[in-house]
Amino acid sequence: MLLRMSTLFVRTLREDPADAEVPSHKLLVRGGYIRRAAPGIYTWLPLGLRVLAKVERVVREEMDAIGAQEVHFPALLPREPYEATNRWTEYGPNLFRLQDRKDADYLLAPTHEEMFTLLVKDLYSSYKDLPLALYQIQTKYRDEARPRAGLLRGREFVMKDAYSFDVDDAGLDAAYQRQREAYQRIFTRLGLEYVIVAAMSGAMGGSRSEEFLTPTAIGEDTFVRSPGGYAANVEAVTTPVPEPLPYDDAPAAHVEDTPDTPTIESLVALANERHPRADRAWTAADTLKNVVLVLTHPDGERELVVVGLPGDREVDLKRLEAAVSPAEVAPATEADFAAHPELVKGYLGPAAVGAANTGREDAVRYLLDPRVVPGTRWITGANVEGKHVFDLVAGRDFAADGTVEAAEVRAGDPAPDGSGPLELARGIEMGHIFALGRKYSDALGLKVLDENGKAVTVTMGSYGIGISRAVAALAEANHDDAGLGWPIQVAPVQVHLVATGKDDAVFQAAAELAAELHGAGVEVLYDDRPRVSPGVKFADAELLGAPVLVVVGRGLAEGNVELRLRRAADAEALGVEVRDGRPVAEQVPVADAAHRVADVVSALLDR
Amino acid sequence: MLLRMSTLFVRTLREDPADAEVPSHKLLVRGGYIRRAAPGIYTWLPLGLRVLAKVERVVREEMDAIGAQEVHFPALLPREPYEATNRWTEYGPNLFRLQDRKDADYLLAPTHEEMFTLLVKDLYSSYKDLPLALYQIQTKYRDEARPRAGLLRGREFVMKDAYSFDVDDAGLDAAYQRQREAYQRIFTRLGLEYVIVAAMSGAMGGSRSEEFLTPTAIGEDTFVRSPGGYAANVEAVTTPVPEPLPYDDAPAAHVEDTPDTPTIESLVALANERHPRADRAWTAADTLKNVVLVLTHPDGERELVVVGLPGDREVDLKRLEAAVSPAEVAPATEADFAAHPELVKGYLGPAAVGAANTGREDAVRYLLDPRVVPGTRWITGANVEGKHVFDLVAGRDFAADGTVEAAEVRAGDPAPDGSGPLELARGIEMGHIFALGRKYSDALGLKVLDENGKAVTVTMGSYGIGISRAVAALAEANHDDAGLGWPIQVAPVQVHLVATGKDDAVFQAAAELAAELHGAGVEVLYDDRPRVSPGVKFADAELLGAPVLVVVGRGLAEGNVELRLRRAADAEALGVEVRDGRPVAEQVPVADAAHRVADVVSALLDR
Repeated sequence: MLLRMSTLFVRTLREDPADAEVPSHKLLVRGGYIRRAAPGIYTWLPLGLRVLAKVERVVREEMDAIGAQEVHFPALLPREPYEATNRWTEYGPNLFRLQDRKDADYLLAPTHEEMFTLLVKDLYSSYKDLPLALYQIQTKYRDEARPRAGLLRGREFVMKDAYSFDVDDAGLDAAYQRQREAYQRIFTRLGLEYVIVAAMSGAMGGSRSEEFLTPTAIGEDTFVRSPGGYAANVEAVTTPVPEPLPYDDAPAAHVEDTPDTPTIESLVALANERHPRADRAWTAADTLKNVVLVLTHPDGERELVVVGLPGDREVDLKRLEAAVSPAEVAPATEADFAAHPELVKGYLGPAAVGAANTGREDAVRYLLDPRVVPGTRWITGANVEGKHVFDLVAGRDFAADGTVEAAEVRAGDPAPDGSGPLELARGIEMGHIFALGRKYSDALGLKVLDENGKAVTVTMGSYGIGISRAVAALAEANHDDAGLGWPIQVAPVQVHLVATGKDDAVFQAAAELAAELHGAGVEVLYDDRPRVSPGVKFADAELLGAPVLVVVGRGLAEGNVELRLRRAADAEALGVEVRDGRPVAEQVPVADAAHRVADVVSALLDR
Repeated sequence: MLLRMSTLFVRTLREDPADAEVPSHKLLVRGGYIRRAAPGIYTWLPLGLRVLAKVERVVREEMDAIGAQEVHFPALLPREPYEATNRWTEYGPNLFRLQDRKDADYLLAPTHEEMFTLLVKDLYSSYKDLPLALYQIQTKYRDEARPRAGLLRGREFVMKDAYSFDVDDAGLDAAYQRQREAYQRIFTRLGLEYVIVAAMSGAMGGSRSEEFLTPTAIGEDTFVRSPGGYAANVEAVTTPVPEPLPYDDAPAAHVEDTPDTPTIESLVALANERHPRADRAWTAADTLKNVVLVLTHPDGERELVVVGLPGDREVDLKRLEAAVSPAEVAPATEADFAAHPELVKGYLGPAAVGAANTGREDAVRYLLDPRVVPGTRWITGANVEGKHVFDLVAGRDFAADGTVEAAEVRAGDPAPDGSGPLELARGIEMGHIFALGRKYSDALGLKVLDENGKAVTVTMGSYGIGISRAVAALAEANHDDAGLGWPIQVAPVQVHLVATGKDDAVFQAAAELAAELHGAGVEVLYDDRPRVSPGVKFADAELLGAPVLVVVGRGLAEGNVELRLRRAADAEALGVEVRDGRPVAEQVPVADAAHRVADVVSALLDR
């Protein structure tokens, strides 16, 4: 493959696009890989499409290797199957819905569990047909509230989605494990660092799910790890529940004036000054903060809830949202407070909320952090402006409608499995695997006859990889200030060949070298532009990020061309010296250049 | 590539699907190539996806070979660009429209002229950047009123669409010619017979367009050919306009009673009996039939029109629709007649219609067939029940608001270029190429600076191939009563290897042969099912239609396997005898079988 800069459909930009915040987004646009068509919707330009195709190929090969068979479903689908599983409603505003000319309801599929289930039901009927694994690489749609970071969270995106069908749980376990291992091979081949973390199943349903995250500071997913090997998406972290405390000797609850305590800190200071605790000082962790939030259910219903949690922690809206999925979560509005005068802002306490507590059926639902176990003593709102209640004891003085994982997870929190303190990091979700079980096969009636002729419900898994997102993650993981630096496995071209100067001999030698490399099966982008300065050409080469740069220029008079690796990681792997973060260039006799370059390309591909 | 029937995700069906009318649709469903998901929307199963990918590869290679560069646009697009060219409206109900969560208007793109134009405008600015050709292979959407024939007319389908950008008309001509030649190579490589016909540009706009049709009786496009080489889609045929006739000596028009003349035939019979013409007998061609039709404009407005044409011809709704595009056409309803009492059904004449004729501004528009030239004498309705007017002379006694190509084209009609009488045939539109000119670049402001620094509007072409439709056309062109018979270039597998009987030795020899062929790079589908009868296996092989069938069975005792070609055309090409339409089987020593089969595959690929 031989591309020429003079004709390649690309324009590199020196300025970052105005809407781009993260490096991968900036560099993919500046390098002419992608172009925005609408919010969260991108066009692939020739170089971007080449990277995408290479990612697809790796995924396809690994899927084929575990015996998954490729099919291809439509993106435009009728409502009925998604109605049967309730996802037509549950997806809420994230689903693109439309009607055809006959007013029939359709959707643009965000994922295809229903259709795969129905297809297998349509064609298969016996346990002998199983196990079965199918997959597709296909364009998906999700009407994200906040599309962001270019390809990282788009509204139209490419996914690999796979589905497994087994007659029993052991089969599902094996299928899940095969996919999990294939994912490990895929991300290794792509050169993407990954962490496998426990995750919530959310709207997908199912018993077990794990995410493959690529660690990066710009990732929008937060995950935790413990020294003992626990790893989870922050939404999936469960709080170890403390033992209940005896409270027979606890003082009785007492309401106190607490003027001028707009913050937890000021409240704690006042408490320690005027109502000191005998055994130790009050801290923020002794206050019970009650936060009013609104759940918007998929059917559009708004429900107020109050979450009670220790005052030293914030509500993590994403954790709460995962816990109450498929509802969406937002802070309560002034109008909500106006409609509920019992919710005294800043002085809200358990006595005002919770059906179990007050006996009022229309009371706002009250959910507690799991740390608020019976016997814990709290300072909290007295439901009167300027007053708090002290020594309010859980289990003795108040109860709730349930517990909820809504408090932020912090570094140092204990891992739920006792494997030590958690550390937090951010990552991009690259893959997600679900042991679905029978949610979809039950809803859609997918059964097969077992050995005894008895109908058994098939058990399923579903397994996704964000293909277009992987391109962005790769760009994110492989760039420096000057531009991109692709691993050779996914680079749009292997070699960027630059001819500098105005000398015809240079251009002739470069053209010959390009042709020779092309003949040797090397993918070359030849910068043959006649009236472009070397500086611009080098800047373009660094921005575009091919792993091998070859320069035909002044050295040609001495019979040499220059060979330089773009990536320090590649240099290290090949034993090339790196100075100031840049691999040192090698002078190669022009007569030997094609062989030398092809060898370097082979070495990089093989490692 | 080695597939095994025991695990391949396929179920062949013995019964035709209820909704299928044409052989390709029946056989692609019965063979497990595709599966319906909704009207006009199909899922690709593993075998179908393999054929689709092979068609794509041929198209991609030929596009790349003419220097077209591949990109990939979203399917979900914002309204604005399509509003700028008026196609948001013009597409009428054929466009899938939807809104996102912010109520912004989107569409599912039926074709991408606007987006390509904007992309080039976005990146390019100089004549030096041109010529440029871009293409994509992408999923498109059209909300067809009557999706039909499986993949032949779907609502979600795969297209290759290419676009050329040139600074002047000569450049466009050259780009158009390059695409035209690439299309010829593509259809030749696919083994699809084709005819290139002149076509209407319709909603696309532009000066010149041609269609590539595959002739077949089930095609929904009718085209014409003349002995002198004229070829056109029937919608594009223009009627040679006769010279006006002198009418100074024509008799005056006279109204006559014409009772009991419900048909043209009965009217002509009565005319010849009671009001004979002096020079010759009246024929149906002397009657002027006036047909009331409804145009539905893209904005939803319904407009009545009357088309006047010789009584021996019917109105061809598709020709009329092409002539009045983007309006859709339907017969007038009883309600329409009720609302227009001046339109006396069965006795309608020119005097009742046409603004120019009657002077009434609200008169129904009257359009005449081009054959109704001044001086022609007609029998036509007198706008009174039971009466016709005779010797009504065009140009003397009546006029119209314009002419229209609405009359059917018939075999024997003269070609518009004088190249002889037309013959009619049917075909499937496989490709359509348009010299668009400046319609889109004007509407969207795509200009570049020319050599003198002057801004010039770019001229464009657009070029489409129906990729998924090609799969159906290939199936349509390559089948017999027993099933499909793919040309090897697009066959899902090259060799279908069947093991028959219950003998372990047979299955062992077949498995070894399959592995050997796989090792030699041959694509094999091995029917390894243990408890399936030879009859079922042969029927499946014939239905699936791989070009080479290898049978390991009873002959193995004598050391032989059987090799049989599926297609008589392949047999003829390789000099194999064909008896009763079936290539004669060859007995091959099992030791030599892999080489022999690989040789046959190579020979088929090379021819």
